[in-house]
Amino acid sequence: MGKHVLILHGPNLNLLGKREPEVYGDQTLDDLNAQCERLGAELGLEISHFQSNHEGALVDKVQEAGLAGISIVFNPGAYTHSSIALRDAIAGSNAEVIEVHISNIHARERFRHRSMLSAVCRGTIVGLGTDGYLLAIRALAETPDGA
Amino acid sequence: MGKHVLILHGPNLNLLGKREPEVYGDQTLDDLNAQCERLGAELGLEISHFQSNHEGALVDKVQEAGLAGISIVFNPGAYTHSSIALRDAIAGSNAEVIEVHISNIHARERFRHRSMLSAVCRGTIVGLGTDGYLLAIRALAETPDGA
Amino acid sequence: MGKHVLILHGPNLNLLGKREPEVYGDQTLDDLNAQCERLGAELGLEISHFQSNHEGALVDKVQEAGLAGISIVFNPGAYTHSSIALRDAIAGSNAEVIEVHISNIHARERFRHRSMLSAVCRGTIVGLGTDGYLLAIRALAETPDGA
Amino acid sequence: MGKHVLILHGPNLNLLGKREPEVYGDQTLDDLNAQCERLGAELGLEISHFQSNHEGALVDKVQEAGLAGISIVFNPGAYTHSSIALRDAIAGSNAEVIEVHISNIHARERFRHRSMLSAVCRGTIVGLGTDGYLLAIRALAETPDGA
Amino acid sequence: MGKHVLILHGPNLNLLGKREPEVYGDQTLDDLNAQCERLGAELGLEISHFQSNHEGALVDKVQEAGLAGISIVFNPGAYTHSSIALRDAIAGSNAEVIEVHISNIHARERFRHRSMLSAVCRGTIVGLGTDGYLLAIRALAETPDGA
Amino acid sequence: MGKHVLILHGPNLNLLGKREPEVYGDQTLDDLNAQCERLGAELGLEISHFQSNHEGALVDKVQEAGLAGISIVFNPGAYTHSSIALRDAIAGSNAEVIEVHISNIHARERFRHRSMLSAVCRGTIVGLGTDGYLLAIRALAETPDGA
Amino acid sequence: MGKHVLILHGPNLNLLGKREPEVYGDQTLDDLNAQCERLGAELGLEISHFQSNHEGALVDKVQEAGLAGISIVFNPGAYTHSSIALRDAIAGSNAEVIEVHISNIHARERFRHRSMLSAVCRGTIVGLGTDGYLLAIRALAETPDGA
Amino acid sequence: MGKHVLILHGPNLNLLGKREPEVYGDQTLDDLNAQCERLGAELGLEISHFQSNHEGALVDKVQEAGLAGISIVFNPGAYTHSSIALRDAIAGSNAEVIEVHISNIHARERFRHRSMLSAVCRGTIVGLGTDGYLLAIRALAETPDGA
Amino acid sequence: MGKHVLILHGPNLNLLGKREPEVYGDQTLDDLNAQCERLGAELGLEISHFQSNHEGALVDKVQEAGLAGISIVFNPGAYTHSSIALRDAIAGSNAEVIEVHISNIHARERFRHRSMLSAVCRGTIVGLGTDGYLLAIRALAETPDGA
Amino acid sequence: MGKHVLILHGPNLNLLGKREPEVYGDQTLDDLNAQCERLGAELGLEISHFQSNHEGALVDKVQEAGLAGISIVFNPGAYTHSSIALRDAIAGSNAEVIEVHISNIHARERFRHRSMLSAVCRGTIVGLGTDGYLLAIRALAETPDGA
Amino acid sequence: MGKHVLILHGPNLNLLGKREPEVYGDQTLDDLNAQCERLGAELGLEISHFQSNHEGALVDKVQEAGLAGISIVFNPGAYTHSSIALRDAIAGSNAEVIEVHISNIHARERFRHRSMLSAVCRGTIVGLGTDGYLLAIRALAETPDGA
Amino acid sequence: MGKHVLILHGPNLNLLGKREPEVYGDQTLDDLNAQCERLGAELGLEISHFQSNHEGALVDKVQEAGLAGISIVFNPGAYTHSSIALRDAIAGSNAEVIEVHISNIHARERFRHRSMLSAVCRGTIVGLGTDGYLLAIRALAETPDGA
Repeated sequence: MGKHVLILHGPNLNLLGKREPEVYGDQTLDDLNAQCERLGAELGLEISHFQSNHEGALVDKVQEAGLAGISIVFNPGAYTHSSIALRDAIAGSNAEVIEVHISNIHARERFRHRSMLSAVCRGTIVGLGTDGYLLAIRALAETPDGA
Repeated sequence: MGKHVLILHGPNLNLLGKREPEVYGDQTLDDLNAQCERLGAELGLEISHFQSNHEGALVDKVQEAGLAGISIVFNPGAYTHSSIALRDAIAGSNAEVIEVHISNIHARERFRHRSMLSAVCRGTIVGLGTDGYLLAIRALAETPDGA
Repeated sequence: MGKHVLILHGPNLNLLGKREPEVYGDQTLDDLNAQCERLGAELGLEISHFQSNHEGALVDKVQEAGLAGISIVFNPGAYTHSSIALRDAIAGSNAEVIEVHISNIHARERFRHRSMLSAVCRGTIVGLGTDGYLLAIRALAETPDGA
Repeated sequence: MGKHVLILHGPNLNLLGKREPEVYGDQTLDDLNAQCERLGAELGLEISHFQSNHEGALVDKVQEAGLAGISIVFNPGAYTHSSIALRDAIAGSNAEVIEVHISNIHARERFRHRSMLSAVCRGTIVGLGTDGYLLAIRALAETPDGA
Repeated sequence: MGKHVLILHGPNLNLLGKREPEVYGDQTLDDLNAQCERLGAELGLEISHFQSNHEGALVDKVQEAGLAGISIVFNPGAYTHSSIALRDAIAGSNAEVIEVHISNIHARERFRHRSMLSAVCRGTIVGLGTDGYLLAIRALAETPDGA
Repeated sequence: MGKHVLILHGPNLNLLGKREPEVYGDQTLDDLNAQCERLGAELGLEISHFQSNHEGALVDKVQEAGLAGISIVFNPGAYTHSSIALRDAIAGSNAEVIEVHISNIHARERFRHRSMLSAVCRGTIVGLGTDGYLLAIRALAETPDGA
Repeated sequence: MGKHVLILHGPNLNLLGKREPEVYGDQTLDDLNAQCERLGAELGLEISHFQSNHEGALVDKVQEAGLAGISIVFNPGAYTHSSIALRDAIAGSNAEVIEVHISNIHARERFRHRSMLSAVCRGTIVGLGTDGYLLAIRALAETPDGA
Repeated sequence: MGKHVLILHGPNLNLLGKREPEVYGDQTLDDLNAQCERLGAELGLEISHFQSNHEGALVDKVQEAGLAGISIVFNPGAYTHSSIALRDAIAGSNAEVIEVHISNIHARERFRHRSMLSAVCRGTIVGLGTDGYLLAIRALAETPDGA
Repeated sequence: MGKHVLILHGPNLNLLGKREPEVYGDQTLDDLNAQCERLGAELGLEISHFQSNHEGALVDKVQEAGLAGISIVFNPGAYTHSSIALRDAIAGSNAEVIEVHISNIHARERFRHRSMLSAVCRGTIVGLGTDGYLLAIRALAETPDGA
Repeated sequence: MGKHVLILHGPNLNLLGKREPEVYGDQTLDDLNAQCERLGAELGLEISHFQSNHEGALVDKVQEAGLAGISIVFNPGAYTHSSIALRDAIAGSNAEVIEVHISNIHARERFRHRSMLSAVCRGTIVGLGTDGYLLAIRALAETPDGA
Repeated sequence: MGKHVLILHGPNLNLLGKREPEVYGDQTLDDLNAQCERLGAELGLEISHFQSNHEGALVDKVQEAGLAGISIVFNPGAYTHSSIALRDAIAGSNAEVIEVHISNIHARERFRHRSMLSAVCRGTIVGLGTDGYLLAIRALAETPDGA
Repeated sequence: MGKHVLILHGPNLNLLGKREPEVYGDQTLDDLNAQCERLGAELGLEISHFQSNHEGALVDKVQEAGLAGISIVFNPGAYTHSSIALRDAIAGSNAEVIEVHISNIHARERFRHRSMLSAVCRGTIVGLGTDGYLLAIRALAETPDGA
């Protein structure tokens, strides 16, 4: 069986499709998760997902995934810009993480330009809409487990 | 029936009346909530209240209220100065929020001078003690539901 | 007879209702002063008002009011962000001042985010439109003279 | 009759021709005003002028001109670098303003490099001596009234 | 019976001994807690311990301990550098806290150099490995209850 | 026929595979271009490529592509961090650009953390090696011409 | 014969009239050059023009003009904000330069507010549209050759 | 007859002896002026004095004194820290000025540490109470008129 | 025989017990040295001590100790915040150093928050009064010579 | 017998009269000390003096004077801008100090604008040449011993 | 045959001897190149030289030299302070570079104090006039090829 | 007889060859001094040397040399980055100084990038190992005494 990939959504992503459609589109989080699952199936990957508004819950989940060898497609939302705890969780559990942002954070307020997490992630995909998740899954599929 | 208003208290406000009385007075959180309820009744508003030390729990509550059309009198406490997640929750759920601070945060440490939330709130009342909550309720009462 | 309250308006507020109605509404300064007087009458307060575009004239007026024990509802306009002279006038004359801003200064240009005056005022009300003046009058009415 | 243009001189410009001739030349303010009037006559414009060392008096004058549809050639002198009140007066009264500086402020002390006013003026002419006033008058003459 | 001391561990310390052994050593959190308990017993102190990745849960615990007169040896992990909520909890509940960091945070990334908590703690011990906890317990043992 | 995509390589990318293999891998620029062409063929896209160490030559090329409706996968190399000219070229010619960086620029020197271009690009892919180019091509393939 | 003036256009000005007409108008570079030539003829000046997207080509041209005693009306475009090489070329060749910007750079992004060149130019004209070029030509015409 | 010295007092100094006696002592401005006059008489100097809360009025006075060859002992109060207009007035009128501050501005808020005027004054005396005025008069008495 | 430990005191520590007792207690430097010696004897360590107000003398002493394999308990006093020479001496001589501060430097002026030395010391103990020295001695006693 | 005053000269003041006469005049340190002694005799004060290029030697001397109740006229030279050790020596020994600078440090390089010592001195006299020493002696003579 | 050394001159160095002789002397670039060649011949080195005002052309040349094992004496002129492309070219091609500046860049404008290149060069020689080139050649001659 | 040159070594250079050989090589200070003397002899220069860890002692020595017309090859070590006293000593005594650093300080910690001394030295040689001393001696030999 293929790699296991956790789609991890940070704060306020449960509002997806319900808020600011001109920024985030009208696809809901359930739609997006389903789309990820379909692509995972196609590429032979096992897909699971989790969303929380709680930084601590996201830290727990990153640790858990990292220690279990599960790769992560992570949209850390607002915690992107401040969370050293998430950074330490990624580095400390050796989690393989690709950071994704739906909107182009570099074209928004100044405090959204810096990510505390990018330096410890394998890579980052920004501004390509929910397609960013799918490209990240594809990127993980290319890397053999344990690479 | 009138507007529904949530009195939302951030971290450490459960200590109200128990700590630093020279800064915060000796009224407890229960006293304050009761006072808000009395004024709400007088003005024909429905009042509820919630306190948490957890940023995520406050994000959950703001989303919930915002989506349900409930207005918020919000004292975000220490999260005022750092929480982009609360900012996004307010903006994302279209919550009508008046930010309140009991003490004059501009006369305290430098890191308390900046609010991450004010820009997405309707307004802010600072330094008028617990009266600030009552003035905020009054301000919300003036605005017709949906204005 | 009740407390005496001076409604003090800083630079460009004489344009109120004549400029940028989408930011400041279409109420003129005369309308606003009249509204303040009506509320003062209702609460048993003596209300006077003054507007100037001159920093020095505002300093003179703050000193005069402070030394005479007159409380002030003060919208310092553009001088908010730079005037140490007004700050010293408030602190030096022991004036009881509530600072009011009609628009949400925290949602405007960065140089409008900092107030030189807030630290020496009793409190600050921001972004609640001209209602902010009325709430400030109410807050002053709650405090016994000399409190 | 043509456009009305106010030549507005800020603080210390009354010293023109009396101080630092190596920086400002030896032409006096009266000479300069006369020169502006001659060019105005030639171009069919009505020219008036005003100088003050008082920020508030300049604010008053900008408002007055702006509301009356009079265009302004404005050398704000030292207030260039700090006056939010003048900025608000220009923006609030919809005054059409061209900012002029006689000396090259970018080649002087660092605190003279930033203008608080440029962003709300139509344009800025710097370092071309008192010719800058004449070029500004010319630029205003090109634009039809109300453009 | 002696003083009660809470050993409080912040985010990612549950990974101790499982991650980055070259930075944190190979002792697990259970080993460390046991070691603290042994020293506590020797010095006549009551020892308890708690770990969480949730800022809010740590705030709750600090308040609880502070109000109950329990002293704290606190390794706030990543929250050290940003948590005003924890700072307020310590100050607001009058908790006696000694801050401990296993690694030398001053020799790591720049954002780990500043602590938001040190100013409200009794003291700080940095870089002495897990021995830091034991030295902190000793320091608390020296101070009579209520000192 | 499908969309036309220009693979545009900035300064020093001609050294690819010849320098710092531990950072950039040992694939040469020719290999990478060939790989892009193969994927383009597969997805029905027309692929061309260009590399230059000259900022001006890259500006010329971006303008040309933008005006001709050619999409761009752009690795701007060192010019990422300083080139306002490239930013203006993208914005001015309405070029559809996806910015790609082979290495994780956020884990390198501080001056590589900021991109002058991201704000005017559709999106950015960072740190996924030369795979980033392929993912960007895929992302462009998903968008209908003119979208 | 009169003074020789070079109209020098920096990067992306070849797009003039083809991009962002709401910012730059719909006049093309050819139109503008022709207009400059007509005014030059009227004032008895010899006019030539040059545009390049290459910083080095502009440096070459400035040196050439400066050494030949040709005055320059220079719109340095994006290089305004970063080019020390152009600054040195102007200072090193003793070129007489008037810097021109079509749009009001002070009302745009923060990184467009600072000019590296203004300090070594005779003067600067900002925000007066393509009229700025004509005013600059006039200003040069007023100064006798060699002044 | 000896040198003429103007004792010039900035904003809020009219409150001297009426406010914050622990900072400024209980001597009134009239007392201080009288004391200066007595010392002037003793040293053969002509003394006059002026106070204003208006920056513009102080600029007028500095110009007047400077052009008339009158030396100035100047306590610019709050305008110390921001007034470029006063700086230009001193420099432009060649006024001989000694800057005096009653309190130790370096031991107060950070924004009081910088003076915009010191660089163009002959010297500065800080923190020596109202004695500072007397020492400044003495220093002026030592310098022959026109030195 | 056990490890040799130098107790090294920086500038102004000779005043200990003679100055600011509310900050530093009333124990003199001699008392403190004696206390260190008693603990050293108990733990089988050789203790010596040295104090100087001269940065160079402290550099000399650190080099000497470092080269001789003597460990150091070092309170660098005011040189903590600026001395690169002491930093280089520690790093260059491979001295094992524990940095100690009697007061909580993080609760004092901002310029006392940064240590130039912490990054090259084994660890740091702050704010635990003169007990900090004893804890540091204990920490050194735990580490075998040469560890 | 009167107060004892130490004239304390920092680094490079031994060069007085030998270097940069256009900045410091041609009076030597011996001349200046003699002049201070003459004025001291006149005012009934005991005067001594000391110069050193060594920060530590100046710290020693300040402590010594402070503990012995000797007042200090102190020109700390280059150490003004960096020495926390001298600041602590003044504060720790309760020395009464008036800081003197011969040249106008505010009109020189930026790094000379900030003094680390002013905040703990009674006052500061800047830019009045060697007269500053004499004015400082006078100021000390006015204050009774122990005031 | 000996080492090959490229003398590489950045922007505006073609003006050498033609501009600002008080800063750069009156030696032309040809003179300097000839002098370098004479010293090279004396030391058994092969010398070539190149000058360009184009950053890209310098990048090309550095790459070429680096890959061919040719050492470089490089005066990057104005590009010193901004060119990440040149930095990457040096690092990426493993070029052995000694950076030379004719004037003392540390005694000029602030923006000339920082070099983007020094960190990747073997060393830097500043302020020794054109002698700096000769010293650099000598330094390269000392190191055996490939060292 | 030729020029006299003092080789002046700052703090920790006495450890040369004893510490961090991977940074500084294994040559001792005695070796280096001998090498300088041999080159001096060869070039007809008189060479002396001095090392101290005391800033004050280095100030003394610079003054002495400067006043005696002795040139200096100066490696100020850690004092490079902070010593205004040394800067003043060089400027005040008119010493001819070439600053030398053995390692490439621009490739080390950020606080080593800035030199307080370079601006007043004739030139600076960085990163060329102990060869830097020899090149500096050569540079001094080229300049006739008194040039």
